[in-house]
Amino acid sequence: MPAPAQFLKFVDAHEEDFIQRLAKAVEIPSVSGDPAHREDVFRMASFLESQLKSYGVETKSVPLGTHKLEGKELQLPPAILGRIGNDKGKKTVLIYGHFDVQPAELSDGWSHPPFKLTRDDATGRLYGRGSSDDKGPVLGWVNVLHAHKALNIPLPVNLRFCFEGMEETGSEGLDELIISEAQKGEQGWFGGVDCVCISDNYWLNTRTPCLTYGLRGITYFKVMISGPAKDLHSGVFGRMVHEPMTDLVLLMSKLVDVNGNILIPGVDEMVQSPTEEERALYDSLDYSIQDVEESAGGKIALATDKASVLMGRMRSPSLSLHGIEGAFYGAGGKTVIPAKVSGKFSIRLVPPQTPDNVNPLVVKYLNAEFKKLNSKNTLTIEELHGGKPWVEDHNHWNYEAAKRATLEIYKQTPDLTREGGSIPVTLTFAEALRVNVLLLPMGRGDDGAHSTNEKLDKSNYIEGTKLLGTYLYEVAAGQ
Amino acid sequence: MPAPAQFLKFVDAHEEDFIQRLAKAVEIPSVSGDPAHREDVFRMASFLESQLKSYGVETKSVPLGTHKLEGKELQLPPAILGRIGNDKGKKTVLIYGHFDVQPAELSDGWSHPPFKLTRDDATGRLYGRGSSDDKGPVLGWVNVLHAHKALNIPLPVNLRFCFEGMEETGSEGLDELIISEAQKGEQGWFGGVDCVCISDNYWLNTRTPCLTYGLRGITYFKVMISGPAKDLHSGVFGRMVHEPMTDLVLLMSKLVDVNGNILIPGVDEMVQSPTEEERALYDSLDYSIQDVEESAGGKIALATDKASVLMGRMRSPSLSLHGIEGAFYGAGGKTVIPAKVSGKFSIRLVPPQTPDNVNPLVVKYLNAEFKKLNSKNTLTIEELHGGKPWVEDHNHWNYEAAKRATLEIYKQTPDLTREGGSIPVTLTFAEALRVNVLLLPMGRGDDGAHSTNEKLDKSNYIEGTKLLGTYLYEVAAGQ
Repeated sequence: MPAPAQFLKFVDAHEEDFIQRLAKAVEIPSVSGDPAHREDVFRMASFLESQLKSYGVETKSVPLGTHKLEGKELQLPPAILGRIGNDKGKKTVLIYGHFDVQPAELSDGWSHPPFKLTRDDATGRLYGRGSSDDKGPVLGWVNVLHAHKALNIPLPVNLRFCFEGMEETGSEGLDELIISEAQKGEQGWFGGVDCVCISDNYWLNTRTPCLTYGLRGITYFKVMISGPAKDLHSGVFGRMVHEPMTDLVLLMSKLVDVNGNILIPGVDEMVQSPTEEERALYDSLDYSIQDVEESAGGKIALATDKASVLMGRMRSPSLSLHGIEGAFYGAGGKTVIPAKVSGKFSIRLVPPQTPDNVNPLVVKYLNAEFKKLNSKNTLTIEELHGGKPWVEDHNHWNYEAAKRATLEIYKQTPDLTREGGSIPVTLTFAEALRVNVLLLPMGRGDDGAHSTNEKLDKSNYIEGTKLLGTYLYEVAAGQ
Repeated sequence: MPAPAQFLKFVDAHEEDFIQRLAKAVEIPSVSGDPAHREDVFRMASFLESQLKSYGVETKSVPLGTHKLEGKELQLPPAILGRIGNDKGKKTVLIYGHFDVQPAELSDGWSHPPFKLTRDDATGRLYGRGSSDDKGPVLGWVNVLHAHKALNIPLPVNLRFCFEGMEETGSEGLDELIISEAQKGEQGWFGGVDCVCISDNYWLNTRTPCLTYGLRGITYFKVMISGPAKDLHSGVFGRMVHEPMTDLVLLMSKLVDVNGNILIPGVDEMVQSPTEEERALYDSLDYSIQDVEESAGGKIALATDKASVLMGRMRSPSLSLHGIEGAFYGAGGKTVIPAKVSGKFSIRLVPPQTPDNVNPLVVKYLNAEFKKLNSKNTLTIEELHGGKPWVEDHNHWNYEAAKRATLEIYKQTPDLTREGGSIPVTLTFAEALRVNVLLLPMGRGDDGAHSTNEKLDKSNYIEGTKLLGTYLYEVAAGQ
């Protein structure tokens, strides 16, 4: 059941209206991480709520309490919940998106004012903070509602919405809301939800649409070595005392090898080797080593075969050393023996790894390796934060619907991908609602979501709006 | 030939005058590293010059040109040269000291205003920035001149003075002045100098006076690993690319072991093992492992036998890892793969090591070890700064004179020490004048020269003044 032709036609005919809608949203600098912009996040919530209402969605603006940011006690932006349709004969799809954005300043290197949607007609790009992450996709859903209301045709499914304004700043308060609404069952806002669709990620490249069925988890460590009571002068104390930096660097050197293999016994081993079939899936993805190296900006890929490199990101754990707190970090040469240094590293996790089963291995290994050093300094290990990985069944009807919709709109079979990072709300929905969750991206791999000159291609916005609508029809059509 | 009794008596009788002199000097905040205090450094130069003149010293204030500090082009404070006595029958002693100080703010944790000499009569301490480093010792020489002029007795030696106002900020311009004056021979300010005496260091402890006959040199390295064009997200790129931090930590882990042994082939090996006699000298020093650990503020000494620990500082090279530029250094957990990271480390050098003979070993080793890693990232090695070590003949008559003077004033044989740090001007005098250089400290090991609550014990100031005067008489007495 493809989307009706009049829907697709309406979208093409109202391209300009939809772009104006996005322009209005981009003009509201809803930067959740900056207390100075908190009011703008509230403004953006109201804007979105009124848009939903105007197309017949019943909404609720849910206060999420207060939090501390940069020393200030601030009201959290509300979550906007919504529902439209209550037909027992139809499937119910829960849509998630966020209306806050990353910070952006012209002085960061933007070519245009970041909070003004700037159109480049030559390239078809729509520049502006939030254009792709995540105002474009959120307004894509509004566009779908707009079309159906204007055409006076019923939606093929019941819809539920959960939009938040704190995604870029830790999604504070959202997990509790989702869990509590889920526990209310039929009485809650998410009652009867059959599947979830999240549009908050990107194609792997600039050419081929994708569906994403996995995200890595993470566990983040701070490993502190302390010894002297204060920083020492290397002239006076060099070769008289155990230096914390020496111990820390030795310890950090035991974590991962130059090829990315994790040296902590048992961690890499937890993950099953890929089957031939699985490897073939990575081989088939439209993403080359050249793509990887272009986006990294250096010829530094860990392997020469594409499947290995992609599996490194998508189905393997990874350990990255991020830095050291407490050591000399400035320019020039300071002859200090730092008294207390903390190495920061994190491990990206894939099933069956979780912080719960990986952390004990890490702690045991660090303690054992430090003991081998035989240093008189002191080791302290802190687990800073963690999150579980998520992998979904991509043969589920939710994915099958998205595959058919993609083929209809883009005339391409979507790549099936897993991402290396985390979108923690995905796991919350999966665990709280126990339904299939789909990541259905609108933007391209070069949109620069958290970077300068963020953009959304006009074609991705317009075809993406068609894709979201068509996906709903394909869900309704069933397997 | 001990100092005449009337000199010693005069010093005791004028204790209060001498303390007032130090109080006046401390009140001038001659912080050479702060452009806002540059005028004060000039004021301090004038104060010192007029003090010298008033006791019969012929002086010259030598302009040293300009330099850049915090983006400002500033006039360098002058060096104050001086001479008194031109008796061919007497030895000529060159005295060096500096009249600038380290920065100090009450808010750094001082108990008293740092630029007001504060007397604690219970402990006999004189608190104030510069009291020990180096205004006390410099004024000790002025006190000696004062006594001889007042008593109308001739000095036992000819004196030459070289006082600078940039010691705490790299001694800019001084080397050139010393070398140029030395080249003028008899026509220069340092014509006919037989030995040099520098009072700008400290006893090892709080109990036993010392003479210092050695300083370590240094060579400082910045080792950069670069790969990606920009910082990467560890979720997206972890286990796809060679991470510069991984390579850098692996490379830094090959430099020094937990016990301070330098792992760069040939570096430790350049230094001869100590003879039995030499080891005995360290065993005899009044400095215990407890002293080392108390001053470090942790029970972290590298060995349990005292001579080994002291030799580590005084007659061994040491390699310290100072930090990493370009990595994440803040609090909390950031999931960055830094694009370009630079490890900073330095090696303290002892004879026969020099930057010239050590650096090639370091560079060769780093390149070889990096090659072994087989990384696609790029290594760049930079030598940031360097200086040669200095070791003097402590059986020279210059040292013998200081030993006798110490025994006379303190009733103790001084410890013979080498220091782990550098006082670069020492080497400049030794090489330019080719005479014996003595480091004859006035203050104690706990004076806190570059720290908060810098102090000079009154007894060290007064007995130290006697020591400096007596040393001149012992030089005159000859071997």
